[in-house]
Amino acid sequence: MNYGMVLYVLGWILNFEAMFLVPPLLCAVIYRERDGFAILITMLICLAIGLLSVYFKPKNKKLYSREGFAAVALSWLVVSIFGALPFRISGYIPHMVDAVFETASGFTTTGASILRDVEALPRCLLFWRSFTHWIGGMGVLVFIIAILPLAGGSDMFLMKAESPGPSVKKLVPKVRTTAFTLYALYMALTALEVVILLIGGMTLFESLLTSFGTAGTGGFGYLNDSMGSVTAFQQVVITIFMIMFGINFNVYYLAYKRRFKEILSISEVIVYLSIIAVSIVLITINILPLYPGMGGKAVRDAAFQVGSIITTTGFSTTDFNVWPTFSKTLLVTLMFIGACAGSTGGGIKVSRIQIMAKTVSKEIEQMIHPSGVRKIRVDGKLLEHSVLRATNVFICSYLFIFVLSVLIISLNGFDLETTFTAVAATLNNIGPGLSVVGPAGNFADLSLLSKVVLTFDMIAGRLELFPILVMLHRSTWTR
Amino acid sequence: MNYGMVLYVLGWILNFEAMFLVPPLLCAVIYRERDGFAILITMLICLAIGLLSVYFKPKNKKLYSREGFAAVALSWLVVSIFGALPFRISGYIPHMVDAVFETASGFTTTGASILRDVEALPRCLLFWRSFTHWIGGMGVLVFIIAILPLAGGSDMFLMKAESPGPSVKKLVPKVRTTAFTLYALYMALTALEVVILLIGGMTLFESLLTSFGTAGTGGFGYLNDSMGSVTAFQQVVITIFMIMFGINFNVYYLAYKRRFKEILSISEVIVYLSIIAVSIVLITINILPLYPGMGGKAVRDAAFQVGSIITTTGFSTTDFNVWPTFSKTLLVTLMFIGACAGSTGGGIKVSRIQIMAKTVSKEIEQMIHPSGVRKIRVDGKLLEHSVLRATNVFICSYLFIFVLSVLIISLNGFDLETTFTAVAATLNNIGPGLSVVGPAGNFADLSLLSKVVLTFDMIAGRLELFPILVMLHRSTWTR
Repeated sequence: MNYGMVLYVLGWILNFEAMFLVPPLLCAVIYRERDGFAILITMLICLAIGLLSVYFKPKNKKLYSREGFAAVALSWLVVSIFGALPFRISGYIPHMVDAVFETASGFTTTGASILRDVEALPRCLLFWRSFTHWIGGMGVLVFIIAILPLAGGSDMFLMKAESPGPSVKKLVPKVRTTAFTLYALYMALTALEVVILLIGGMTLFESLLTSFGTAGTGGFGYLNDSMGSVTAFQQVVITIFMIMFGINFNVYYLAYKRRFKEILSISEVIVYLSIIAVSIVLITINILPLYPGMGGKAVRDAAFQVGSIITTTGFSTTDFNVWPTFSKTLLVTLMFIGACAGSTGGGIKVSRIQIMAKTVSKEIEQMIHPSGVRKIRVDGKLLEHSVLRATNVFICSYLFIFVLSVLIISLNGFDLETTFTAVAATLNNIGPGLSVVGPAGNFADLSLLSKVVLTFDMIAGRLELFPILVMLHRSTWTR
Repeated sequence: MNYGMVLYVLGWILNFEAMFLVPPLLCAVIYRERDGFAILITMLICLAIGLLSVYFKPKNKKLYSREGFAAVALSWLVVSIFGALPFRISGYIPHMVDAVFETASGFTTTGASILRDVEALPRCLLFWRSFTHWIGGMGVLVFIIAILPLAGGSDMFLMKAESPGPSVKKLVPKVRTTAFTLYALYMALTALEVVILLIGGMTLFESLLTSFGTAGTGGFGYLNDSMGSVTAFQQVVITIFMIMFGINFNVYYLAYKRRFKEILSISEVIVYLSIIAVSIVLITINILPLYPGMGGKAVRDAAFQVGSIITTTGFSTTDFNVWPTFSKTLLVTLMFIGACAGSTGGGIKVSRIQIMAKTVSKEIEQMIHPSGVRKIRVDGKLLEHSVLRATNVFICSYLFIFVLSVLIISLNGFDLETTFTAVAATLNNIGPGLSVVGPAGNFADLSLLSKVVLTFDMIAGRLELFPILVMLHRSTWTR
């Protein structure tokens, strides 16, 4: 284990966190909010520790697989703990466990909150809270890689460990260029949403926060009813952008390069959009009796909630906890499916579900005709055995972590619906679950142990389990 | 597809079903119950169709993989449909869908019931209902194979498709002898339970029915409160036998052959018993406040419920629906784990969970040290790649069937707890779930569509998915 290099990476993480705190600090200056001092103090703490850590450059800059995984997992822990300080220092979140929960929920783009009254927060803290979504959406380390040549040519390990989905394709041969391209596309799409929401009548502050939450598929809002009281036009815009940010970013890269033919060959996106369309239709039919004479609003609410849940954003325009059982069950199913690989969304990912379905179908055919030899193809390309194996291991690890978390959360004594969906909503980085942790509720009443476990689940879910599992494994730290 | 041979197998199934109806008919004669005529009529129908079907012996007696799978799946459908006739003809279950649900629940050893008042049934029908558990526990086709040389030397396909667990080991080189040995052990253990329960004060009728339900890990009882009102001694005896019938039958075979050393090398049994012990301790601690001054009864209830659920029997001595959330969550987890492979129990099976855990652990180590090559061993033996693949495909198919079933059941509009556990309790062949379908409830109020889906789930769960999936696959029936 190259401890020096891991420490060096963590140092840079803190320096960049100090930089990320500049926009909320500016926000405090503009609105003349005294709580800006809490942000300033945090910046100084980050810089002090960060600069000290990067002062001693490690001789050996090589990062291998396990250092890569462990560095990524630790980075996300560090960024969440230090990012929690403004909430703790300002006193708006008095308990450190709560503050770390809220911040990890931000960076992991979960959007689960322990705050009972969001509107009580000053603007600078609301800004920081939503800004963590935007940073976490594309990845903290990906950002650093885009700017800084961090590890001696082995950045790929870091990027692979942080990016969602079964396989990261390098868009261009150089890792740094790929990271830079991804962030450029991400910024352009975010800016587009900000502009449209501004035209739609939001203030700059509101449209920035909403766009951060949409782009990162996060879900933190600035109103107690999430997006329930914004205009119908704004709801439609947010719905469309949520669904767009759940699409594999390769699509936008290909579109930018005018390689439209290749876009059509990405079956994951087609499956993803089909699931969304079918779900909207089924839920609309199911909830129609609740909207007498307001069919349009039923479609809009169905589309918003479906887009919000499958992309794991977690905004809501209505309390879907009161919807019929079928709609709730379908939404819970979408929680697990999640968005496309290579997007900012969480969950199991559409491509993994596709791989699972193709594996089953292949094996059944093998049972019927045992003599033939079949291979699994995705988008015309032969699926590599390593991807198949990683998918299976992902599903197994996922189930183990899920069951263990549910058992610990069940100690709170809430109903099974709360217990089950609290884990589903955090491990899949969605935000709201059902019942106590539903859109009208929050995670405040859970025990400290539960909050620690769910914080772990959020980070594990965002990093797709393996970095966290590697970090926790004994043999990572030996020899 | 060798249609002739499949028809021939189904014919024999019906002949044997007529034979299986002899004991309940005798029961009707002994207790002078007029409803015995419903049984007699069913016997005649089975014999008429059965004898006609086996009269024309197919020229080609070869059964290949797909015929084997399809024949097994169809056999279980046929046996459930014809076995439902006594309930339908006697009028005790007026609707055929309900009658088939109840009978499939019997043969698949699920024990989920649509009857609101079990005690209203005549003894001969109660006998038949419990007897289906006993037949289904070890397998209908395994029974036939033990007696009859059915397919020209390719019985193994039939036996493999019907026996639970990742891999069926032939105990002895000949399939027929293995089948015979299994049934002999099964009969001996059942007889032992009957004798002990007789000594414990039950009548012959009661001890027979209880033992059928225990041996098949079924769960149908003859009292409305399941096993709540039998004596403490009887509850303890049933607990022990439930746990014994959840153990891999190889253990009993090896014990009979005095190969005790080999027993100790079967890690599945050790894991299975450890899970049971830990669960009993945790649940006892959790429910203790509900039993003031009755610690002994708390332990007894915890042990009974844990043994009943993990073995997927489904008897109950108390309404665990009112237990604290942690205990309920733990029981639901046990529902999925299930018993050992090669036992009469259902669920995912302990050995599959072991294989999943070992796969995850191996892959994490591979990530940490990518250069090493690791193999997965179970009980010292190298795990074959085909078993690993089959386990993964099982888990994926299982998840797909589970989610699809839950979505259909959610149309009933019951709470999520009912919806989720109704599927868990049938797909894992347990019986009672929670809430509406809890130990104090039943499946009567579900829609017809739900009952059809859950009947499908019960058979799919008992046959471990693949035979049913092969049967439903288009290409099984073409060419």
